[in-house]
Amino acid sequence: MYMVDLIQKKRDGGLLSDEEIHFMIEGYTHNKIPDYQMSAMLMAICFQGLNQHETVVLTNEMMHSGEIIDLSSIEGIKVDKHSTGGVGDKTSLVLGPMVASCHVPVAKMSGRGLGHTGGTLDKLESIPGLHVDISKEDFIKQVNACHLAIIGQSGELVPADKKMYALRDVTATVSCIPLIASSIMSKKLASGSDAILLDVKYGDGAFMKTKEYAKILAQTMIDIGKSLGKDTRALISNMNEPLGNAIGNSLEIKEVIDTLNGHGPKDLLELCLTAGSQMLIQAQMTDNVITARKMLQDTIDSKEALRCLQTMVKAQGGDDAYITHPELFPKTKEVISIRSQQTGYVKSLNALTLGLVSMKLGGGRMVKEDSIDHSVGLVLQKKIGDYVKKDDVLVKVYTNTGLTKELKNQIYDAYEIINEYVCQPPLIDEIMK
Amino acid sequence: MYMVDLIQKKRDGGLLSDEEIHFMIEGYTHNKIPDYQMSAMLMAICFQGLNQHETVVLTNEMMHSGEIIDLSSIEGIKVDKHSTGGVGDKTSLVLGPMVASCHVPVAKMSGRGLGHTGGTLDKLESIPGLHVDISKEDFIKQVNACHLAIIGQSGELVPADKKMYALRDVTATVSCIPLIASSIMSKKLASGSDAILLDVKYGDGAFMKTKEYAKILAQTMIDIGKSLGKDTRALISNMNEPLGNAIGNSLEIKEVIDTLNGHGPKDLLELCLTAGSQMLIQAQMTDNVITARKMLQDTIDSKEALRCLQTMVKAQGGDDAYITHPELFPKTKEVISIRSQQTGYVKSLNALTLGLVSMKLGGGRMVKEDSIDHSVGLVLQKKIGDYVKKDDVLVKVYTNTGLTKELKNQIYDAYEIINEYVCQPPLIDEIMK
Repeated sequence: MYMVDLIQKKRDGGLLSDEEIHFMIEGYTHNKIPDYQMSAMLMAICFQGLNQHETVVLTNEMMHSGEIIDLSSIEGIKVDKHSTGGVGDKTSLVLGPMVASCHVPVAKMSGRGLGHTGGTLDKLESIPGLHVDISKEDFIKQVNACHLAIIGQSGELVPADKKMYALRDVTATVSCIPLIASSIMSKKLASGSDAILLDVKYGDGAFMKTKEYAKILAQTMIDIGKSLGKDTRALISNMNEPLGNAIGNSLEIKEVIDTLNGHGPKDLLELCLTAGSQMLIQAQMTDNVITARKMLQDTIDSKEALRCLQTMVKAQGGDDAYITHPELFPKTKEVISIRSQQTGYVKSLNALTLGLVSMKLGGGRMVKEDSIDHSVGLVLQKKIGDYVKKDDVLVKVYTNTGLTKELKNQIYDAYEIINEYVCQPPLIDEIMK
Repeated sequence: MYMVDLIQKKRDGGLLSDEEIHFMIEGYTHNKIPDYQMSAMLMAICFQGLNQHETVVLTNEMMHSGEIIDLSSIEGIKVDKHSTGGVGDKTSLVLGPMVASCHVPVAKMSGRGLGHTGGTLDKLESIPGLHVDISKEDFIKQVNACHLAIIGQSGELVPADKKMYALRDVTATVSCIPLIASSIMSKKLASGSDAILLDVKYGDGAFMKTKEYAKILAQTMIDIGKSLGKDTRALISNMNEPLGNAIGNSLEIKEVIDTLNGHGPKDLLELCLTAGSQMLIQAQMTDNVITARKMLQDTIDSKEALRCLQTMVKAQGGDDAYITHPELFPKTKEVISIRSQQTGYVKSLNALTLGLVSMKLGGGRMVKEDSIDHSVGLVLQKKIGDYVKKDDVLVKVYTNTGLTKELKNQIYDAYEIINEYVCQPPLIDEIMK
């Protein structure tokens, strides 16, 4: 079997056989197939696609290219949650404690942020002492003890994806649905949970720009999950404005704490209640959404979820005083208020721009090697549908490096304010399963 | 400028600017752009194409990636001829001496064979002592002295194409018309001639399988040539059967000598007269085809062209006695006759199969590193339209390694013989300019 023949087959619209996909992934993982052949194949796939069977086989081969985590020593049905990423998306940190407080084990491996989207691990590391590189044994022990652990992805997990993703990033072959789907799902499947809930976001702050693409991606991932024997569901959610109000690492952790204290932003809570309800049903804790929502709301009202987060932070070496006293988080040198220049309703909000401003303040990474200032970021005071008077504060900017005129203008430009009444957009469009 | 952005632009159907194409070719030639990005770009080009302007700019950048031969010290209008390659194609070796005998300087750089197609240099090297690696100075001196030199391509010519071709070969990005056209034309343009005649072949023994594709390729190359100020024309010729009767290096040289002696195969002579007429017109030796054909026929009748070949062979260190006494060429151990099993007319002949049989006998290369047995090959006794009686010889096989049953069957299968009269197919379909 020669890789050049496989590339030609796909280029000409043919279907790759199971053996051919195995040959390709096994060979690429072990450096027997060079990058230049794989990148040509990936580009051919961008044009010709992969059918459902090819996508499932590809995912399965990628998943088996490295270690597969065995979570069987954790009692109960393990439900993993994955978000395709967005601006201000701190869902896992609210949802994890809520679901864990309902006695569903949450054994989560998360990623770091790049570009305009933040990463759960970076946000967690705002808490002094907390570490995310924990051995598999300690990880399992922690989940058994307190139902919740959020750690970094093991280096041995899905090496094929690690190589392929790095290659896709520099060869303009990232935005291809079967490749995105197999990349996400191979990692989720190798992480060992029993069921998977996906949060597929669309909008200018998300990876998928339109609802239609988000739905195709979700369906592709659901098909993969089901074909490989996992209950897989997906929310389709709106990322045309940031989720919640805070963008930036410790600012988002404070918002997580606020939410678990019962006074967080409505959209963030709603997303957690909706996603969590599905997870409780997937974990067979209940069979209906109404009961599930009540169980989850109770974990907030009783502060059970907050205590769960605190326990996890402590277990992972973090200073849990920050959870009860979030005023301990380091302050930035300046907090600059950006005020509205007009009166009206917020028609739209550019999430991508705001995510990039936070990154440029030092809160995110342009390239993988960049270090992060955990204290900086933005807190939105007005969102879509809000009524704004001239001179009302739109955004508070937390910065240690001032605010250039350019960034200031970018924030202004991210807000579109009009004279007519604006309805709030739907947050969740659909639950697919 | 980043290569990944250029790949994405082309993937999405955009047009590359002149500066972007310069950046890409300059960067790739000097190893600043890695193979894996170039192969993704080439695959994107296979799908999205290049428009006429992009193709011209690409060719120009490739041409300027290395040395450009200056032939200005050779007097007269230099016309180069290029064939896209086929089975039994020894045209250059007949045409070169004919045209040179009409006082048109022929300063030709040729290639080696790979796969089912032979290379002019390999054929020439059948003649003991003849060498094709000649310095530029001696090359020019020889053309000024005897109007004819056929040598190997300089190593410094079009390094961008050398790298890109090797990459295309292993990434299934060879068969893409703008890439084929820019590869051929960049080399022709860097070789320094004033006008170019292309012989674009179609059929199963050629690179282009259909007449339609051959015409598109020809038009693309003509457009490039004209845009860069060179009179460029193209024959569209049939390669559904081998050209002439001989396939294999010294067997083809003997057929060249036969043809220059006035008793070669009709199709080979016809192609040389047609191609040569265009070249004489391009070289402004005459303005009409009838005069041109007569001038060329005279070079055969007078043996002028044969003497010209002999002079060239001697100038390049070869033993010119082989030209006057072709019986000197080494004989093979065996000559095996393949006889027809039926009576009828030859309906079709698989040129590709016959080319591959000759290669497998040792007459060609499977991979670049293979060495060649110059003496082996096939001589066809029957071609399309010929009437064949049972037991007539179809093919004589010249071999030093016997003939396996498999190869014998392949030769049989290459012939389709039917009971009805068969017209001879046209050899040349069109002259494009």
